[in-house]
Amino acid sequence: VSSDQSPGRPLPPAVALRLEISDEPRAIAVIAGHVAEAGGRVRTLSTVRRIAGHGSAPAEQSIADLELEIEGADEHALIEALGSLREVIAIHLTRPLGKVFGKRVIVVGGGAQVAQVALGAVTEADRHNLRGERISVDTIPLVGEEVIASAVRAVADLPRARLLVLAGSIMGGEISRAAEELRAVGIPIIALNMVGSITEHVDLVVSDPVQAGTMAVMAVADTATFELARQRGRRY
Amino acid sequence: VSSDQSPGRPLPPAVALRLEISDEPRAIAVIAGHVAEAGGRVRTLSTVRRIAGHGSAPAEQSIADLELEIEGADEHALIEALGSLREVIAIHLTRPLGKVFGKRVIVVGGGAQVAQVALGAVTEADRHNLRGERISVDTIPLVGEEVIASAVRAVADLPRARLLVLAGSIMGGEISRAAEELRAVGIPIIALNMVGSITEHVDLVVSDPVQAGTMAVMAVADTATFELARQRGRRY
Repeated sequence: VSSDQSPGRPLPPAVALRLEISDEPRAIAVIAGHVAEAGGRVRTLSTVRRIAGHGSAPAEQSIADLELEIEGADEHALIEALGSLREVIAIHLTRPLGKVFGKRVIVVGGGAQVAQVALGAVTEADRHNLRGERISVDTIPLVGEEVIASAVRAVADLPRARLLVLAGSIMGGEISRAAEELRAVGIPIIALNMVGSITEHVDLVVSDPVQAGTMAVMAVADTATFELARQRGRRY
Repeated sequence: VSSDQSPGRPLPPAVALRLEISDEPRAIAVIAGHVAEAGGRVRTLSTVRRIAGHGSAPAEQSIADLELEIEGADEHALIEALGSLREVIAIHLTRPLGKVFGKRVIVVGGGAQVAQVALGAVTEADRHNLRGERISVDTIPLVGEEVIASAVRAVADLPRARLLVLAGSIMGGEISRAAEELRAVGIPIIALNMVGSITEHVDLVVSDPVQAGTMAVMAVADTATFELARQRGRRY
């Protein structure tokens, strides 16, 4: 077996739909079943909004807005398969979020440095996106060992996450264990040069936070020649 | 009817699971059906990784890692309902992404100002998150009317997106139409003070990009007293 979603290789293109549905217990199962019958596979599904109904009449059932991305079936087959379902109120064709927001660099950490990493990464992403890339920078400022460790673990569950930057002045213990778990699922980590064991459990250590953000974007950009694998274990 | 996911009110707590599944056409439908039988509703589902199988033997079937968030059923009922399915290889209990990464402020735009908005927003989020908030800042640097307009529309499909900041020096036309569509689904917009019609189609106009980012975070923070509704139409 070989991974077809290593950091450099995204999932194949998908059809994206926004569905307005009647929010019944079995609605998602019915929709997924009809997607499968049309030859597709649901890859992502998000309930982005809900309108709660009042009373017991079926017309006042809650309504949910779903963002749905499907692989393996074209839009015509999907609209035919889903358009006649009782549970589906409306279908809008949209664009897969990966096409719009692209690869995600995640920045986690606290204090003055976290915004400097974001500044470096956003400025560098602006330059690559001008040349046709799609890279976004998602920053969550957090403090505390347990809190940061659980954020590091959760990066494994974030759609389109390609690289993590850890910004701060001291990290170790549970954060270092979480870092190894994240790297084991194929997501590399850059850390600032800081106190604690974390610098022994990442792919690259960078002292300047603006440069750490810049290198993070270079590492995921197809428009850059920077290869993180060739820098592994180094410090700048 | 009344919205139960207005920008200030998140969806109720969910159980989060990471499933390793056999990537068969009907797998998602089978899983969603068993979730419904256990009394739950799938709220989000993301295929975060896939391992492609080679050959035709069932043991070499592709494997997919799903992030799954479910409402209305507890973890024991779900593990019992899903653990015995042929399609499910492994189940890990995780944490809902909303609990880890929280509310999202989205920043879209290009040039020098986009990183300054991110800097203001990340610095302000750091202050609120220290007091128990969970706010993250997602920035996608983009240029061009059509490209930005489609990103503005796609914010409606982003899980946990609460507010959009438009950063740039000139925006209008299709971007202004997209802005009105986004506001219609309940997501407010702050724009920098810039050339073009966009400033007539947003909730608030702010000249300083650092302050625009700061106000964006204040507007979504429960720990701040800033109410965007009371500022609507103003310019700073």
